[in-house]
Amino acid sequence: MVGTAKPRHFCKDVMSASLTPAQPGTRSSSAERGHSLLHPDRLFPVDPEARHIARRLFESVSALPILSPHGHTDPRWYAENEPFPDPATLFVKPDHYVTRMLYSQGVTLEELGIARKDGKPVEADPRKVWRRFAEHYHLFRGTPTRAWLEHAFTMLFGFDERLSARNADACFDQISTHLAMPSFRPRALFERFRIEALATTESPLDDLRWHKMIRVSGWNGRVITAYRPDAVVDPQFDGFAENLRRFGEIADEDVGSFEGYLNAHRKRRAFFAEMGATSTDHGHPSAQTADLSRNETRALYAKVRHGEASPEDAEIFRAQMLTEMAAMSLEDGLVMQLHPGSLRNHNPLLHASFGRDIGADIPTATEYARALKPLLDRFGNARGFTFILFTLDETAYGRELAPLAGHYPCLRLGPPWWFFDSYEGMRRFREIVTETAGFYNTVGFNDDTRAFCSIPARHDVARRVDCGYLAELVATHRLDEDEAQEVALDLAYRLPKAAYKL
Amino acid sequence: MVGTAKPRHFCKDVMSASLTPAQPGTRSSSAERGHSLLHPDRLFPVDPEARHIARRLFESVSALPILSPHGHTDPRWYAENEPFPDPATLFVKPDHYVTRMLYSQGVTLEELGIARKDGKPVEADPRKVWRRFAEHYHLFRGTPTRAWLEHAFTMLFGFDERLSARNADACFDQISTHLAMPSFRPRALFERFRIEALATTESPLDDLRWHKMIRVSGWNGRVITAYRPDAVVDPQFDGFAENLRRFGEIADEDVGSFEGYLNAHRKRRAFFAEMGATSTDHGHPSAQTADLSRNETRALYAKVRHGEASPEDAEIFRAQMLTEMAAMSLEDGLVMQLHPGSLRNHNPLLHASFGRDIGADIPTATEYARALKPLLDRFGNARGFTFILFTLDETAYGRELAPLAGHYPCLRLGPPWWFFDSYEGMRRFREIVTETAGFYNTVGFNDDTRAFCSIPARHDVARRVDCGYLAELVATHRLDEDEAQEVALDLAYRLPKAAYKL
Amino acid sequence: MVGTAKPRHFCKDVMSASLTPAQPGTRSSSAERGHSLLHPDRLFPVDPEARHIARRLFESVSALPILSPHGHTDPRWYAENEPFPDPATLFVKPDHYVTRMLYSQGVTLEELGIARKDGKPVEADPRKVWRRFAEHYHLFRGTPTRAWLEHAFTMLFGFDERLSARNADACFDQISTHLAMPSFRPRALFERFRIEALATTESPLDDLRWHKMIRVSGWNGRVITAYRPDAVVDPQFDGFAENLRRFGEIADEDVGSFEGYLNAHRKRRAFFAEMGATSTDHGHPSAQTADLSRNETRALYAKVRHGEASPEDAEIFRAQMLTEMAAMSLEDGLVMQLHPGSLRNHNPLLHASFGRDIGADIPTATEYARALKPLLDRFGNARGFTFILFTLDETAYGRELAPLAGHYPCLRLGPPWWFFDSYEGMRRFREIVTETAGFYNTVGFNDDTRAFCSIPARHDVARRVDCGYLAELVATHRLDEDEAQEVALDLAYRLPKAAYKL
Repeated sequence: MVGTAKPRHFCKDVMSASLTPAQPGTRSSSAERGHSLLHPDRLFPVDPEARHIARRLFESVSALPILSPHGHTDPRWYAENEPFPDPATLFVKPDHYVTRMLYSQGVTLEELGIARKDGKPVEADPRKVWRRFAEHYHLFRGTPTRAWLEHAFTMLFGFDERLSARNADACFDQISTHLAMPSFRPRALFERFRIEALATTESPLDDLRWHKMIRVSGWNGRVITAYRPDAVVDPQFDGFAENLRRFGEIADEDVGSFEGYLNAHRKRRAFFAEMGATSTDHGHPSAQTADLSRNETRALYAKVRHGEASPEDAEIFRAQMLTEMAAMSLEDGLVMQLHPGSLRNHNPLLHASFGRDIGADIPTATEYARALKPLLDRFGNARGFTFILFTLDETAYGRELAPLAGHYPCLRLGPPWWFFDSYEGMRRFREIVTETAGFYNTVGFNDDTRAFCSIPARHDVARRVDCGYLAELVATHRLDEDEAQEVALDLAYRLPKAAYKL
Repeated sequence: MVGTAKPRHFCKDVMSASLTPAQPGTRSSSAERGHSLLHPDRLFPVDPEARHIARRLFESVSALPILSPHGHTDPRWYAENEPFPDPATLFVKPDHYVTRMLYSQGVTLEELGIARKDGKPVEADPRKVWRRFAEHYHLFRGTPTRAWLEHAFTMLFGFDERLSARNADACFDQISTHLAMPSFRPRALFERFRIEALATTESPLDDLRWHKMIRVSGWNGRVITAYRPDAVVDPQFDGFAENLRRFGEIADEDVGSFEGYLNAHRKRRAFFAEMGATSTDHGHPSAQTADLSRNETRALYAKVRHGEASPEDAEIFRAQMLTEMAAMSLEDGLVMQLHPGSLRNHNPLLHASFGRDIGADIPTATEYARALKPLLDRFGNARGFTFILFTLDETAYGRELAPLAGHYPCLRLGPPWWFFDSYEGMRRFREIVTETAGFYNTVGFNDDTRAFCSIPARHDVARRVDCGYLAELVATHRLDEDEAQEVALDLAYRLPKAAYKL
Repeated sequence: MVGTAKPRHFCKDVMSASLTPAQPGTRSSSAERGHSLLHPDRLFPVDPEARHIARRLFESVSALPILSPHGHTDPRWYAENEPFPDPATLFVKPDHYVTRMLYSQGVTLEELGIARKDGKPVEADPRKVWRRFAEHYHLFRGTPTRAWLEHAFTMLFGFDERLSARNADACFDQISTHLAMPSFRPRALFERFRIEALATTESPLDDLRWHKMIRVSGWNGRVITAYRPDAVVDPQFDGFAENLRRFGEIADEDVGSFEGYLNAHRKRRAFFAEMGATSTDHGHPSAQTADLSRNETRALYAKVRHGEASPEDAEIFRAQMLTEMAAMSLEDGLVMQLHPGSLRNHNPLLHASFGRDIGADIPTATEYARALKPLLDRFGNARGFTFILFTLDETAYGRELAPLAGHYPCLRLGPPWWFFDSYEGMRRFREIVTETAGFYNTVGFNDDTRAFCSIPARHDVARRVDCGYLAELVATHRLDEDEAQEVALDLAYRLPKAAYKL
């Protein structure tokens, strides 16, 4: 999907001496043992017949442009278009998947150069951070992180052997050399990745300055925002009271009243839509929705605004706000996304030392059938409303989510998310969801990433796994190959384009 | 399993021009891409070795008669033996699986010709309903509905290409022509399907007139009833008070007392047993059972009878009645079935406009280990009692259901049900359940269908998937092939026959 | 892994006439239909390419010594080194997996010779018990019990055909003959099994006399104990008050105060550690932990000690004690294991007649993310603390356990346990856990068994399934084969050795 960089240095590993490169279309032989850096048949079914079908399906979607309707890359990168500073800052420090695994095996966040809130010293030398990462590279065996890294290392930076403690320095240098080239600046990579549209996620408190800068720059990469109001919707969010004050200020609305508060949302949503947003996103601890009377809601908002909300009140307020947001989506056409079920900041020691989003978020059991009913009772049958559901609790796929999406016209299922953005995770999703909800109540892939270089890798994985799943449907005569071909295109391109109104 | 009808018209589809028919025993080749209408190896493992074993196993069970001990076809069909009216009425309108998928993608129930409770006009032309269905046929890709439809289209109505918008009218005509033939009347199809015994499900309020008519008709198809008392057991059932009154009237018992109410059940159970019933069936929101004292039960019944039961009272009453029904099963030998865990009528708009059972039932998490304990504490070790459990919450398979069925002599596990009556659903069931409960604590297959023409298709799928699973046990040397052969026969025929006392 | 005994008698079965032995490395052919007694490729992937890889991986681990860091064999066996009495006592009577399946299909425990608490007569003839077992041998088709039995029957006792009603007596005699040989005494088998270290599990009330006897005997088999304090930690344990009294007596501490009670634990832990223990084990109904103040804990302990604890108090006390045990593990270095989620003694009739542990324990839904937080808040980031989690609720693998273990330095995931100690159970574990937690946050295999002869079988199954899983990673190019080789060694040997400090 992305052109192969011509490597100028080769890093040599102890294992690689006898390795010969894999040949496209051949099955692995003893000669290539130990070598799987981007085998052309990776992630396809093992059975030769099914693998052939998968290969044919994949050929037709592998070069399609990338639609990235939900993600967390930094818009500043595309606005300023500065070089990425170094390999550790690009690949290690901002990537939860990487830091959490290293932390679980005794590497401290300080050793990885993650900034402490108290300003105490942490590792400042990116090369040392990189070496620590390379020494522990075996920890990622069998994980999607490994697949994403290997894709970027090979396709972008020309590695032809595995990263290890032994070749860490050479690899660091090799990436650094590339990062200094103009063709490795954010916009150039964006184009090389064939990204047709990419959404970032911003709070209503964000002034979207980087998005504005991108717009006025003349660059025609399509980077859009998405409206993520948790900071002013969740009474338990860090700094909620101050957030609310700023929200009123920015929107020029009196958030002392619930009506003013709703108006502030309407205005900010409109501004986000102007800056390209086609969707909103809601990261709640549960999927609870509510449909209180206006008077009940006003009274609840008053408690919330005065910091008097109990945890139960906070839950009901978030629940009510999902229904309010749905009502606004019916007005302004923004697609609504719900990402529930993560117990955030589970590790108080790390939260105190390093702040939010440090890899200590743990999924919990999440109920949908009863929780969504108040919202669905009002808007479940509404025309023109799209409500995309995600889950971190896979038990809901077959029990609740597929039956719900297979009935309500507004509902669509987002792709397997976060810990399940993986080969097995995607397989389980398709195997469990498809029989009840079909393909057309799903929305293709979201990369949902902060790790820019992983974007092509993640879409590559998703397309391969979907093609592999379709190939097995064909090989077991559950689907005709011409249909599988059409579905492969739908999943890779048409469904996200339609669902997110891109 | 059913003879192939000789088609008189061929519907041609844009994709079919270059298609050649699949040859039995060959693997799909590029020549047959796009063609999977009933490939003889459908649903078998992809690996050639395992596929050969599956084929051998399937050969010995594919022609066995069908036992259908749990289903919802209309006994009137067999009693009157009138022709089925038209393709839309046969395949689209009564089939939740079909209507819910279409509804989820924006087709209204009115457009599908589903009658409204308020009598407002809906689509009256079955050909137009059929066209809408055909236009949306791609939605069913990868679903069991597609497999069932294709089986009936091919085996009964001689289709040799996929249904599509383009061939919709020709296909409508082709089915219509067949339906007018004597050989397509219900009894003829029943015989062609090789059904040895088929159970319908009736309420205690039903007079079983159609079953009586079948009995006196001289036709020797074995159509039996099953006792489904939800309407007079669930205080939250629509019209419960009136149901109770009629129950007393029909049974000629004073249901003003709990003893009279129990006697009414005893009499109706005896009458159902006379009309062939070998089982009862209970569709409860949860698996809760109770074992109250007689005085507590009397007091609870008084509240229930006077319409004073809270939701919690209703739950306890249903729970107590499961234990009462178990006690009666010990007396009269009827096999007891429990189908818990569906949140019924989830969509209030559709419920108000179209009534119950309109495809908006959503499964919920269902607990068994604690819920069943009161009943099992009394009857779990009883001789001669059979209690068959179903679930819509697959998480219970390995965690609770297989361990329970692998211990209690009375318990058996029903097959994967409803949304899980599917290739992947059956695979998960066998893979998760077998290692703990074995094969002999399961009861073979139930089609559980309202869609008459899907009966042979569903049993065909179940036998194929079971043979495929057994073939993989053999291919991985977990089971000998002679044993697999025996198990295949048990699952297809002997186990349902024994478990349901047919 | 274990040498094949030279059989002196051959039991002949009706099915075996035409069977020829399987050849290593060949795929099953029609000639060997019906024969799968220990095929050399058993449990490997079906696909030939993946099977070849699995075979290569397995070759390097199949002969490794066994580490059995968690189990329930009787230390008296190794201490006294007496012959095992008879086949029924060795294979049937003590094995829940066997007795529960037979009971579920109508065989009474009396017929199996299980002693009743009231002393009423039960079957006394082991040959008759064995015959009943053999008559029902088909019930175990597709279960891990079947695989374990077949492994022992073949490798130890030289069977070359399946057990059946027909050959039951001959097989009984064949086993009996072997059991009389010196080479079939416990220590000889221990050595033949290549067990490097084996842990039993004892209560703090145990005087560890058998472990002492082993130590002074001069035999150098490494049999160690593990500290399992449920009997003095769980206020709902049978005989808790008396247990507590004896605990104080044995430890020579005043358990009238909470401090004395904790000191008693400290002393017994130290004694267990002297007798080789490297771990503690905790079998709780839930994973709940607590972190009460010392005063709250003292008050709670007073209630518990006086038998005044409500069920809720009992739950909090157990929860608090997990955190206390973790604190002691930080002091004395014992590895902590938690086995939560079993509803014990579900069948009151059997519990009353036969006592605890009679195969009627049923798993229940188990929450971890919130339940473990109090303990993890204190010790989750501590150096040198190892906390190994097990589950009977597989839904927690991906949702909670892998994310927790993939973050907290102290956490490791134990292998699939009890009902999930099986081919499919192990597959699900690796497929769900690896992508989030990797391999290095797991601890290899535990056999956790009372059935001595199943130990080599269980480790053989685990190594085969792990190699099969790794082979599929290699065949789908998710892992290089040299890495897979290393991981196979880690899972079979290095990880349990390190995690359990053996």
